[in-house]
Amino acid sequence: MARVIVDVMLKPEILDPQGQAIARALPRLGFSGVSAVRQGKRFEVELDGPADEAALEEVRKMAETLLANTVIEDFSVRVEG
Amino acid sequence: MARVIVDVMLKPEILDPQGQAIARALPRLGFSGVSAVRQGKRFEVELDGPADEAALEEVRKMAETLLANTVIEDFSVRVEG
Amino acid sequence: MARVIVDVMLKPEILDPQGQAIARALPRLGFSGVSAVRQGKRFEVELDGPADEAALEEVRKMAETLLANTVIEDFSVRVEG
Amino acid sequence: MARVIVDVMLKPEILDPQGQAIARALPRLGFSGVSAVRQGKRFEVELDGPADEAALEEVRKMAETLLANTVIEDFSVRVEG
Repeated sequence: MARVIVDVMLKPEILDPQGQAIARALPRLGFSGVSAVRQGKRFEVELDGPADEAALEEVRKMAETLLANTVIEDFSVRVEG
Repeated sequence: MARVIVDVMLKPEILDPQGQAIARALPRLGFSGVSAVRQGKRFEVELDGPADEAALEEVRKMAETLLANTVIEDFSVRVEG
Repeated sequence: MARVIVDVMLKPEILDPQGQAIARALPRLGFSGVSAVRQGKRFEVELDGPADEAALEEVRKMAETLLANTVIEDFSVRVEG
Repeated sequence: MARVIVDVMLKPEILDPQGQAIARALPRLGFSGVSAVRQGKRFEVELDGPADEAALEEVRKMAETLLANTVIEDFSVRVEG
């Protein structure tokens, strides 16, 4: 059993208005020193077996098919722990 | 300049129906070996200065105030790279 | 063929920090007159057949099972058009 | 005081993999008769004043600036009630 993390973020050239809203709201709440915030998704995928290379390749295919829209989003896959 | 990552996930006892839908859809797409999927949020926070302990403490406060709803979500803060 | 809309919002007593961030960012962008913003989800469900009472009851069950987490979210179902 | 609803959906030509996952998971849960599901966002915006034409025009500008990414998303604005 292993946990694999898939991070999905909008591609850098795609605007993230809600992330920008968070960045803009920070000074009003007393937070300074933040130049940008971007919001994405994080998936925790629990595997029945070990996170070997074959399993990670499966998760990469899952990410391409189900978790990310690769037209507008980038993803990365990594083993946790 | 540094990048801090804030991961926000529903607390383990809170149901995640859309993550479950993804897990249930996998076998129909030819993916096996996944027992559970949970979906959360990932924020990338760009700092003007270094990610020292004071800055991380600020980001933790931001997470509590703006990025996570701590009644239903847990968060973790870490420096990337 | 019919389209049914399922709106899912956090229950009123559950804090929505990202909606609040949007509300707080508005004055800095020159928008006034907004007292609150809440963010939820909207699902568009395309039916093979008509949106009769039996079909809507099915969509309500889908919403309870897959689209909303009824511990923290309320939902409403309606026919579009 | 009035409530304005902003619906934000991915443009029709942009793939929605998580909506598709929900559609694919339905038969395994005993639901039939659904051909597609798309997931978007719904914002509830509370105005201090009435939802007159000037206020709605402000909300439309807010939607373009903060609530939707008009490169990949369409939005609609309407008064509730």
